[in-house]
Amino acid sequence: MSDTLQDLRGRINHFVAERDWAQFHTPKNLAMAMIVEAAELVEQFQWDTPRESTQLTPEKHEAVSHELADTFVYLLRIAEVLEIDLIAAANAKIDLNAKKYPSDKVRGSNAKYTAYES
Amino acid sequence: MSDTLQDLRGRINHFVAERDWAQFHTPKNLAMAMIVEAAELVEQFQWDTPRESTQLTPEKHEAVSHELADTFVYLLRIAEVLEIDLIAAANAKIDLNAKKYPSDKVRGSNAKYTAYES
Amino acid sequence: MSDTLQDLRGRINHFVAERDWAQFHTPKNLAMAMIVEAAELVEQFQWDTPRESTQLTPEKHEAVSHELADTFVYLLRIAEVLEIDLIAAANAKIDLNAKKYPSDKVRGSNAKYTAYES
Amino acid sequence: MSDTLQDLRGRINHFVAERDWAQFHTPKNLAMAMIVEAAELVEQFQWDTPRESTQLTPEKHEAVSHELADTFVYLLRIAEVLEIDLIAAANAKIDLNAKKYPSDKVRGSNAKYTAYES
Repeated sequence: MSDTLQDLRGRINHFVAERDWAQFHTPKNLAMAMIVEAAELVEQFQWDTPRESTQLTPEKHEAVSHELADTFVYLLRIAEVLEIDLIAAANAKIDLNAKKYPSDKVRGSNAKYTAYES
Repeated sequence: MSDTLQDLRGRINHFVAERDWAQFHTPKNLAMAMIVEAAELVEQFQWDTPRESTQLTPEKHEAVSHELADTFVYLLRIAEVLEIDLIAAANAKIDLNAKKYPSDKVRGSNAKYTAYES
Repeated sequence: MSDTLQDLRGRINHFVAERDWAQFHTPKNLAMAMIVEAAELVEQFQWDTPRESTQLTPEKHEAVSHELADTFVYLLRIAEVLEIDLIAAANAKIDLNAKKYPSDKVRGSNAKYTAYES
Repeated sequence: MSDTLQDLRGRINHFVAERDWAQFHTPKNLAMAMIVEAAELVEQFQWDTPRESTQLTPEKHEAVSHELADTFVYLLRIAEVLEIDLIAAANAKIDLNAKKYPSDKVRGSNAKYTAYES
């Protein structure tokens, strides 16, 4: 069992090495695999209303959890092969977004949100 | 600065609350936002050979890092609104995959990998 | 100007040949390019309610039209390089779907639709 | 059987009406459904080399043909509900692209192609 992000990365690396799959894990291929998993998540919600998507049966909640996990695993693999620190990268991007979308200008409006988000 | 996954989730929640954006963050909408970011990552590699995708200029490495970060932030938001523990979900999914793809059967073959991966 | 699907395919082939871009147009690369365009369409609607997505301003209607066009052009390129007749392929798939989702069993229910659609 | 694009649109509209599914076919939902199908196409090629993706077995060629067809059907549905003429939209977009990527400037270079394509 892996309790931290670091443990999880190690466990995934071991899983890949045992199967000799690193040879297929170029960033190009991994980006394709990740978007396939992201689409399996989208599929879970495609005919739901937004409200329905917040009220999941236990079975659907578990299915969603599996798709999120698959996306996360490929995200970690891409970070691994490109030697990117995901936590640091996310913090750096949030710093940029905080400047790009100042809270006093974009607060609460769908229209503004749409216009400010790119 | 947020040094752990838990700190990062807190920081993102704060960012969203300050902008009153939680009202738009249904799982349906967030899944759409996440796949848009995943596609921006795919775009970085679409005309690269697999080998070229492993050898990035510093500028491209940074751009890729930003797209990975954006995907990660939405992944964390979906986990947040659905109360899913991402680390636990990933570990549970790896347990399933380890049974589905036993290393002695799928080791190293592209053909087998394709057939076993779904 | 191209008035038919056949004319349009010819025009796109000419556009690609003039730029010597066919060398990049493997099915793998084109599938990546197409999903990037499909995601740009998704982005147009990500924060809309389903109802809002049916009521577009003229500017947004044009933007959506451009993203649909880009997706369509890559779809036609994939069909071209793999020598697939898109009209015939769509008809064949609808024949399959008509058997898979008999109208008397799936009629009008979101729940049934979700269960029958895969 | 539908031999033209116009016939095919009519056939799809009939298929949807028989099942009373138009109620779910908002542009938002259809864009999600279309990207899910586009991802099923990406999945076919994710571990292939670019060259392998050009040399398909008959079984894989048929599977690819089905995924292309599914993507095409949702593309046509979006065009239908938003009253967009796909052929005209594609021609208009190619006119724009012809100005954006003049053939004498972008001819044949992967680097230039990447820089000019957005």
